[in-house]
Amino acid sequence: PSHEAAAAVRERDAQLTKPPGSLGRLEEIVEFLAAWQGKGKPEINRPLVAVFAGNHGVVAQGVSAFPPEVTRQMLENFTNGGAAINQLCKSFGLGLKVFELALEHPTRDFTVEPAMTEAEAAATLAYGMEAIDDGVDLLAPGEMGIGNTTAAAAIYAALYGGPASLWTGRGTGVDDTGLARKTAAIDAALALHGPHLSDPLEILRRLGGREIAGLMGAILAARRARVPVVLDGYVACAAAALLHALNEDAIAHCLAGHVSAEGAHAEVLRRLGKKPLLDLGMRLGEGSGAALAVGVIKAALACHRDMATFASAGVSGAG
Amino acid sequence: PSHEAAAAVRERDAQLTKPPGSLGRLEEIVEFLAAWQGKGKPEINRPLVAVFAGNHGVVAQGVSAFPPEVTRQMLENFTNGGAAINQLCKSFGLGLKVFELALEHPTRDFTVEPAMTEAEAAATLAYGMEAIDDGVDLLAPGEMGIGNTTAAAAIYAALYGGPASLWTGRGTGVDDTGLARKTAAIDAALALHGPHLSDPLEILRRLGGREIAGLMGAILAARRARVPVVLDGYVACAAAALLHALNEDAIAHCLAGHVSAEGAHAEVLRRLGKKPLLDLGMRLGEGSGAALAVGVIKAALACHRDMATFASAGVSGAG
Repeated sequence: PSHEAAAAVRERDAQLTKPPGSLGRLEEIVEFLAAWQGKGKPEINRPLVAVFAGNHGVVAQGVSAFPPEVTRQMLENFTNGGAAINQLCKSFGLGLKVFELALEHPTRDFTVEPAMTEAEAAATLAYGMEAIDDGVDLLAPGEMGIGNTTAAAAIYAALYGGPASLWTGRGTGVDDTGLARKTAAIDAALALHGPHLSDPLEILRRLGGREIAGLMGAILAARRARVPVVLDGYVACAAAALLHALNEDAIAHCLAGHVSAEGAHAEVLRRLGKKPLLDLGMRLGEGSGAALAVGVIKAALACHRDMATFASAGVSGAG
Repeated sequence: PSHEAAAAVRERDAQLTKPPGSLGRLEEIVEFLAAWQGKGKPEINRPLVAVFAGNHGVVAQGVSAFPPEVTRQMLENFTNGGAAINQLCKSFGLGLKVFELALEHPTRDFTVEPAMTEAEAAATLAYGMEAIDDGVDLLAPGEMGIGNTTAAAAIYAALYGGPASLWTGRGTGVDDTGLARKTAAIDAALALHGPHLSDPLEILRRLGGREIAGLMGAILAARRARVPVVLDGYVACAAAALLHALNEDAIAHCLAGHVSAEGAHAEVLRRLGKKPLLDLGMRLGEGSGAALAVGVIKAALACHRDMATFASAGVSGAG
């Protein structure tokens, strides 16, 4: 991060027509953008929601309330502008790009074998790195994939310790029986893969999903391109948690857009050292919580950029 | 509120392409708008920030970090588009209207005598009722007035019990000495007016300010006009608290836009039974927290209004 850029923001902020500190986290946000973009005058001209989509073999265990064909159907819904994320992107002027990750080839059922081969995980991670081309200046990575809260819960249990019940929520809305199946599937996977779960990349390959690999690539590439990232919810943060486990600093360029109502997301954010901007009981995925947070972030930047100073407005300063 | 309108929203919500409940409070918001607008298809076409501005005699006690001429200077800044509230209104498409309340006649110093006469308080409250003309369909009342966090703290202490220190914060940023003067001024006022503080309207007259009276009128008029209200922070909620003390139901059409970092605002919201939408450490006033919340509220409505249904998008429902 650029300390000079952050200092330039603080210097201008002190001159704006408001009591010092009175915009709270809006002020912090602008400093964060400046530091990670490396610009004393940060910009949000090309914010992007990048949605990664994959299918999951573990749905064979009856872990989701929705059938797996919904992944592809929802991608068509994104294309036709009918999903929540479309309305949020339109509301706040974000671009939306969907990365379809071999939907016809679901990952393997991780209660039986590793979800992905090394080649599959690596190639998908590399593909995710393409999310931030085209001059994107703020990235909100999202996801779609029936079964993927099961993969995310398995990743958290592997990273932070089980049992699965600590990390498992109802996802799209499984009933008690479905929740029991979901928890049992994760516990079975932890037992099967247990000896191989000390390496975060091995956790990704064995328990993750293509969209989680893609999200990791996008977050990594954003860092290299000086693009700040707004994290979405329970599934997107599984990618962040894997990167954080590899290197705590790897997600320093990420803000937590919101805390999800799903499962143990609040505890995950605590472990990642991130304080969410929003807490609205959302648990949809698609990047929806992050997109809503971008609305707040853009407004924070507008205040910083366009407010008058005490001098320019002829307003008296504090006595 | 219209139960039929709320039911119509719930019925449509159940058909939208998302798991039930997955938009969390965004779903509640739309139901709230529908109920209070009395429309199964609620609308936000003319959202308005109405800023009430007044001056305060109690500034003679050295309770503010800024000199009193800043009230008028900031109104000029609003007119010229240079304040935070201007940028927030522009970001989210809100109108902004400023109600200047006899700035050249500050209220009287309430440590010595009542801040307003009955006629002044009543006339200002009536004037505030004009805020919602012109087809406004969502109201975010804000305020500007050097010294007004002192008035608000005095109102809370009178309504909810002292000592003043429980309710007093640093406002625009007084230092420890200033905070001690501010707390002492409120304690002096409570001692002076104590026998007359059982009636909320008498609290308004003796300890309030013109902008607080105006805010009360605006909130009342919105109720009669079926206009939902988004409450701002510490000072705006003093008006809501006075109405609530008169009749708990009087602010049922109000959402808490945010919880302020100022003083005891979180405790005030708890007493009013309101859960804030945002918690971003803001303490600026001007309606800024409410305006930011309107951004979220408009996005919530856009999701409800424009998302595809399972049937229209050809997405399979939950198994």
